[in-house]
Amino acid sequence: MVIDIHGHYTTEPQALLAFRDRQLAGLADPMRKPATNELGITDEQLVKSVEPQMKLQKERGSDLTIFSPRAAGMAHHVGTEATGVEWSRLSNDLIHRICTLLPDNFAPVGQLPQHPGVPPKNCIPELERLAKLGFVGVNLNPDPAGGYWTDPPLTDKWWYPLYEKLCELEMTAMIHVTSSCNPAFHYTGAHYINGDTTAFMQLIQGNLFKDFPALRFVIPHGGGAVPFHWGRYRGLAQEMKKPLLKDHLLNNVFFDTCVYHLPGIELMLKVVPLDNILFASEMLGAVKGVDPETGHNYDDTKRYVDQIKGLSEEQRRKIFEGNARRVYPRLDRRLRKKA
Amino acid sequence: MVIDIHGHYTTEPQALLAFRDRQLAGLADPMRKPATNELGITDEQLVKSVEPQMKLQKERGSDLTIFSPRAAGMAHHVGTEATGVEWSRLSNDLIHRICTLLPDNFAPVGQLPQHPGVPPKNCIPELERLAKLGFVGVNLNPDPAGGYWTDPPLTDKWWYPLYEKLCELEMTAMIHVTSSCNPAFHYTGAHYINGDTTAFMQLIQGNLFKDFPALRFVIPHGGGAVPFHWGRYRGLAQEMKKPLLKDHLLNNVFFDTCVYHLPGIELMLKVVPLDNILFASEMLGAVKGVDPETGHNYDDTKRYVDQIKGLSEEQRRKIFEGNARRVYPRLDRRLRKKA
Repeated sequence: MVIDIHGHYTTEPQALLAFRDRQLAGLADPMRKPATNELGITDEQLVKSVEPQMKLQKERGSDLTIFSPRAAGMAHHVGTEATGVEWSRLSNDLIHRICTLLPDNFAPVGQLPQHPGVPPKNCIPELERLAKLGFVGVNLNPDPAGGYWTDPPLTDKWWYPLYEKLCELEMTAMIHVTSSCNPAFHYTGAHYINGDTTAFMQLIQGNLFKDFPALRFVIPHGGGAVPFHWGRYRGLAQEMKKPLLKDHLLNNVFFDTCVYHLPGIELMLKVVPLDNILFASEMLGAVKGVDPETGHNYDDTKRYVDQIKGLSEEQRRKIFEGNARRVYPRLDRRLRKKA
Repeated sequence: MVIDIHGHYTTEPQALLAFRDRQLAGLADPMRKPATNELGITDEQLVKSVEPQMKLQKERGSDLTIFSPRAAGMAHHVGTEATGVEWSRLSNDLIHRICTLLPDNFAPVGQLPQHPGVPPKNCIPELERLAKLGFVGVNLNPDPAGGYWTDPPLTDKWWYPLYEKLCELEMTAMIHVTSSCNPAFHYTGAHYINGDTTAFMQLIQGNLFKDFPALRFVIPHGGGAVPFHWGRYRGLAQEMKKPLLKDHLLNNVFFDTCVYHLPGIELMLKVVPLDNILFASEMLGAVKGVDPETGHNYDDTKRYVDQIKGLSEEQRRKIFEGNARRVYPRLDRRLRKKA
């Protein structure tokens, strides 16, 4: 079985985007505020909307995608905390419906109603609701300010109530920023990658997993700059008198394979322990199009992993399935129950 | 000849740091403001202060270091524009004296008196002074706000007067942030690497080198996350209908080898054209200490390049010398004059 742990719902029906427009317009003119029940998206529309993903699953050889709302769509910095709560519920409900309609193809991960300057503990009601609905994890935004980084680092006590609940519910968190409202940062080209790099360095500086040994973070996009600068991070941790990375972080921090060329994946597999690498492609996602150097889509990451030489069958199974089932215990239970 | 294009003066005499303390204390209490001529650092002290660098040059096998003030010391976000101008002049003067005293070991690169929210063109007088003193380039900070990124992207017209002057004077600019006053960003572990990644993406989005075909930027620390995500960047440029990276940026943008493990350097040499790679170590620098996996210092980057298989003698000469002389034309002239 091949599990792709990183897919966003980037093919939403137009009705969802129109709702969001009216919701935000409602901040300026309450007359425009839509009712949530206006959405009127049918099950048929939902199934149709994810046909592109299912087609690619079949073509590229993956079975199940861990599926969450569009990352850039979370936009925690936009609107008010209240619009964010409504928007998160609505977005999560669509993910829930898709994963209920197509349980063989998708498993649900949720969006949290974070808001800049607002304590993350305010997200707990939505987190609990998601757990009851069978979600296997959430996306956690380390910068709800959308490129201005005005909230405390991930190691700050500010986040602790949310971490307690994540551990209690065995929900895995992918550290994923959203769109950028800072003109310095292109969202997929700078902000996403910087978010990954920044989160990892915050975790090196702190001792978070002493307080939360059961907390599980996935850093997407191959961990940002981290594997390329693995020596730098090992050296900085050493200078700070931290334990070796494997003891300090790697029981709790995992990387996905959303790196869109073979040499990047090769590097990752050279330096990051195999148990910490989870297959993912972020399709349909951040980088579309065909790489003229290979004739294949940039984001067809399975091809890169398949080309890695010297992996045993067991090692491949870990990357494609085993690690995901270990890092997402709720996913494992979901799959066992289904089987 | 082996040229290390990235060294900062991280072994400054205590008198310089004490001056900076008093200078900033003077903002709160003008009675504490020091006179610039109070510094009283002798030539002997300067030579003594860079003995560690010269010892490592000899031990590791490099000849000349392109030498600039401490990167984190620039701290453009601290104090006022006026204190920054004074601090830059003072810091640059020490670099000038060292490079005059030890011209075989060091070539000067300067710090610009940038200040958040202040037009970069205000740096032109110092830039012209540096050119007259024989400096071969400057460090250009894409985020004078020290981690809040409140100034316009590098492609904005805001920067153009400075670029015009850089071209006119044939000064090469290393894109290098300074310390971070944002608690989200560790300076060497997150802010530096994010700065590199962000700058490259800004340059992809724009068309800066159509306007300034003679402008030369060096992105340090191996280009941040860029080589690891080379597929992502090629794909994003393609989606934006930009030319291939080699035509869009690579006549003007170069990377150094400050990547502190062999697999990182191997990746870089696989994806980045050889003409765009300049040897550097940032010693004594960002990451100190001995890598327990190799028994050698993390920042002894010459070892990594030496271990790359399949490079011809000519290719090695490019990385160690030829590319630096091409990318820093003023350095080339300086070396020819000396010879």
